Amino acid sequence: MKLSFRTIAGAITAPRGFLAGGVFCDIKRRGTGKGSEKGQKRDLALLVSEVPAAVAGLFTTNQVCAAPVQVSLPRAMQAQARAIVANSGNANACTGSRGIRDAQVMTELAARKLALRADEVLVCSTGRIGVPMPMLNVRRGIESAVRDLGPTAAHGHRLAEAIMTSDTRPKEVAIEFKLGGKPVRVAGVCKGAGMIQPGMSLSGKRPAARPLHATMLAFITTDAAIESPALKAALAEATAQSFNRITVDGDMSTNDSVIALANGLAGNRPIGLPGPGRGARAALAAFQAALNHVTLELAKMIVRDGEGVSRLVTVRVTGAAHYRDADAAARAVANSALVKTSWSGGDPNWGRVMDALGYSSARIIEEKVDLGYSRPGSSQVRWAVRQGQPAKASFASLCRIAALPEFDLHIGLNVGSSAAVIYAADLTARYVEFNQGDVRDPASLGG
Amino acid sequence: MKLSFRTIAGAITAPRGFLAGGVFCDIKRRGTGKGSEKGQKRDLALLVSEVPAAVAGLFTTNQVCAAPVQVSLPRAMQAQARAIVANSGNANACTGSRGIRDAQVMTELAARKLALRADEVLVCSTGRIGVPMPMLNVRRGIESAVRDLGPTAAHGHRLAEAIMTSDTRPKEVAIEFKLGGKPVRVAGVCKGAGMIQPGMSLSGKRPAARPLHATMLAFITTDAAIESPALKAALAEATAQSFNRITVDGDMSTNDSVIALANGLAGNRPIGLPGPGRGARAALAAFQAALNHVTLELAKMIVRDGEGVSRLVTVRVTGAAHYRDADAAARAVANSALVKTSWSGGDPNWGRVMDALGYSSARIIEEKVDLGYSRPGSSQVRWAVRQGQPAKASFASLCRIAALPEFDLHIGLNVGSSAAVIYAADLTARYVEFNQGDVRDPASLGG
Repeated sequence: MKLSFRTIAGAITAPRGFLAGGVFCDIKRRGTGKGSEKGQKRDLALLVSEVPAAVAGLFTTNQVCAAPVQVSLPRAMQAQARAIVANSGNANACTGSRGIRDAQVMTELAARKLALRADEVLVCSTGRIGVPMPMLNVRRGIESAVRDLGPTAAHGHRLAEAIMTSDTRPKEVAIEFKLGGKPVRVAGVCKGAGMIQPGMSLSGKRPAARPLHATMLAFITTDAAIESPALKAALAEATAQSFNRITVDGDMSTNDSVIALANGLAGNRPIGLPGPGRGARAALAAFQAALNHVTLELAKMIVRDGEGVSRLVTVRVTGAAHYRDADAAARAVANSALVKTSWSGGDPNWGRVMDALGYSSARIIEEKVDLGYSRPGSSQVRWAVRQGQPAKASFASLCRIAALPEFDLHIGLNVGSSAAVIYAADLTARYVEFNQGDVRDPASLGG
Repeated sequence: MKLSFRTIAGAITAPRGFLAGGVFCDIKRRGTGKGSEKGQKRDLALLVSEVPAAVAGLFTTNQVCAAPVQVSLPRAMQAQARAIVANSGNANACTGSRGIRDAQVMTELAARKLALRADEVLVCSTGRIGVPMPMLNVRRGIESAVRDLGPTAAHGHRLAEAIMTSDTRPKEVAIEFKLGGKPVRVAGVCKGAGMIQPGMSLSGKRPAARPLHATMLAFITTDAAIESPALKAALAEATAQSFNRITVDGDMSTNDSVIALANGLAGNRPIGLPGPGRGARAALAAFQAALNHVTLELAKMIVRDGEGVSRLVTVRVTGAAHYRDADAAARAVANSALVKTSWSGGDPNWGRVMDALGYSSARIIEEKVDLGYSRPGSSQVRWAVRQGQPAKASFASLCRIAALPEFDLHIGLNVGSSAAVIYAADLTARYVEFNQGDVRDPASLGG
C-alpha cells in the first residue's frame, strides 16, 4: 500500500478537539512540597477530548498489574471516553485496595473539574512500585493541570514531558492524511526507558500460551470518525506490530498501557469493521496504515531512548516453522545478555547469536541457519553465516555495519515460511549503572 | 540424612587411580606458535583412569550443539570409559563436519598415546565459536599432556587451569567418606564464567516442554565402585540439583558437559540401582549425597566466579502450584536484567522482583505473594512483602542483607506446595565491559 500521509507539527494536540496539559505537583515529594515548578520536571498530565470519543486500550498482561491498569481496563472496553489523567514518579503498583481507591479518586477529581463522569476518564501511572500515591499532591496537580489545559503544541509538549520517567527526551509524532477527501490527523505520545518488553492485550489477559515479556505508556489521538469496535481492532493490530515487538531489557512492566481516543471531528464518513453490506474497507485500511506508522515510530523512539541504549538492532527472523518459533527465536536473540553486550561493543558476534537461537524454544537446524547484517531496512545483506557455517564476508565488513547506531540482523532459519521482527537494544554499562539504584533512597524501588 | 564426609586436599586426582595433566599449546594461536609456556595459560587438559571406569555424562540441550558434545554423548552412554581430553580457547562449535572430524581426531590422538581405543576417550572444548580447531597445535598439546600426566594434586591443578577461559580462578573440590567401612573419594573440577545457564540431560534432548537455559565443563572422579546405570542416574540427579540450577547470564552454551568417571579402586561392594533382592540402598544414598555435595559446591563456585559477578543470590521459591511454576518464577527473577542490576547495587528492590514474578509463566496471585531476604541458608527471614503488600521490615535492615556478598531471596507464592531453588548472580558494569569484546580481534567471537 502506498502510504500517503505526511508528518505534521503539533504533538498529541494536532488532531482537532484535543486539549492537553502537564504540570509539576512533586509526586516524588522531593521538592519543597509547595508546588513550585522551578527546575522541577512535570509529573502530572491531562488529555481531554472536547467531545465524546471512541476509546480503545491495551494493557500489560503482567499478573502483577498496577491499580491504574485495573481501573482503566474496563473503561477502555466501553464505547466512549473523554479524558486521560496520568502521572510519573509513582506506579501505584503493589499498593493493594488503597491503590485501587487512589486510582479511582484520580479519575473522580479530574471528572469533577471537567464536568465529566468518572468512568469517562482513564488513568495511567509510571514510576516507583510499592509506594502509596501522595494524594494531596496529586489532587493539587490535577487541579493545576485542568487550569493548564489547551490545544496548542506547547500544551502537548507539556503532557509529553509530564509522563517521562528515565526518558531523556519527549516522544511525539503526528501525521495527516485524507479519508474521503477530508483531512484527518493521528498523533501519539509515549514514554519508555526501562522495564521494556511489552506484551499488551485488550483484556489484560495473555493472548497465547507463552507470556510475551516496559513501563511504557502511549496515548494516541485522532480526529478520525471511527466506530469503537473498529478502533479497538485497529489499535490491537497496530500494537501487535509495534509496542509488542520491542524490547529494551526483557522486563515486562506492571503498568504498560496504550490508549487511543478518536473524536470524529474530522468529519469523515465513520469507519466501521468490514461486514456484509458495509464496504469502506479502504478507509479502514488507510486508517490502519496511519495508526501502524504512528505506533511503530513511537515504539522505535522508546528503544532508541531506552536506559543506556546506544544501538537499535532490528532482528528479522524468516523461514521459521511457525510464527511462534519465529517470535521465540527473535526474542531469544534480542534478550540474550551476551548478544546485547556484543552489540554495545559494535561486535558482529554471530557465535553468540547462533547460541541463543539454539537454546530458544524455536525449532532450529544448525546446518540450515543463515545469519547476516545490513544497514537499517536495506536488502543488501552481508552474510556472516550460510548453512550454519562461516560465510565469506570479511570480519571488517561486518564490523562496519555493527558499528552503526542502527542496523538489521537477518536470521534465516530455512525450515518453514514464518517470520517475525523484534526491535531490540544493546546492553551497556550505563544501563547497569543507572539501574543499580541509590540504596540510600527507598524511592529507588523503580517500576 | 547426616552428611559424614570430609573435605580433603588433592583436586581431581584425589581418588585412587586417576592421572591428570594440563599444558599450553597455544590454541588461540596468539603466541609464538613454538609452544613456549612462559607466561601463557595452559589450554589442553587430559584426565585418565588407570583402569576402566564406569562413565556418565550430561550434555547441553542447546540445538546448536558443539562437535565435541556430539562425539562424547554416545560414548558417555556406554558402560565404561578411560579418559577425557579437553581444551580451552576454542569451542569447536559451528564448525560443521570438519569440527566433528577434529573432535574425533582429538580422541584418536589421545587414545594412541595412551594405548586405548578412541571410543574410550571423551572430548570437551570451550572457547570461541565458529573457528576451526588448530589441529597442529592440538596434536602437539595432546602429546605434551600425555607426558605431563601424573597422580599428584599439582597435576590436578594443572588440569583445572587448562580448562579455564574467563574464569579468574580454578574450581576444585574433593571429599572422602566411608562405604561399608572402605574410604571412598569423590572429586570434581569445573570451569564457567559466562554463557551460564545450563540445561543438561543424559541424551542431549530437552527433558521437558520448555528449554532450561553455560559454557560450563565439569569432571567428576571417584574411586567408588558403582555400576554404570547407577552412576548415570546419580549424576543426572546431582546435576538437576546443582549445575542445572545456576544462572550467570541466562545464556545456555553450545558446549556444556558434565562427565563422571568411577573406577572402583576404593574396593567397596559395587553400588547398583535399587531393585528386587538388591538392598544396598544406603550405599547409593550415601554416594548420591556425596556427589550432590561436590556438584553443588562446584556449581556455586561457577556463579561466584561468573564474569563480573559480585554477588551470589539464592532464589528460593516455595508454595508454587507446580514444580514448573516454581522453576519458572525463580528463573524469571534470577534472569531479570532489572533485578540483577539492583542486586549489583546492593539494593533490595522488591518491586522489580514482584514485576518479574508477574510476567513469569508461573501462576501468581499478587495478594498472596510473600517476599523476604536472609543471610545465606538462614531461616531468619526479613519480610519485605507480605500478601503482596509492603511489610514492616525497615528499608535499612533489608539493605544490610542485600549488601552482603551472598544472600537468600525468599519468595512464597502461597498457591500450592511446590518449590525450586536457583543460584543466581548479579549483573555488573564489569560484565558488560568484559563482553563488549575487542572488535579488532575476530577471536572475540566467544562461546
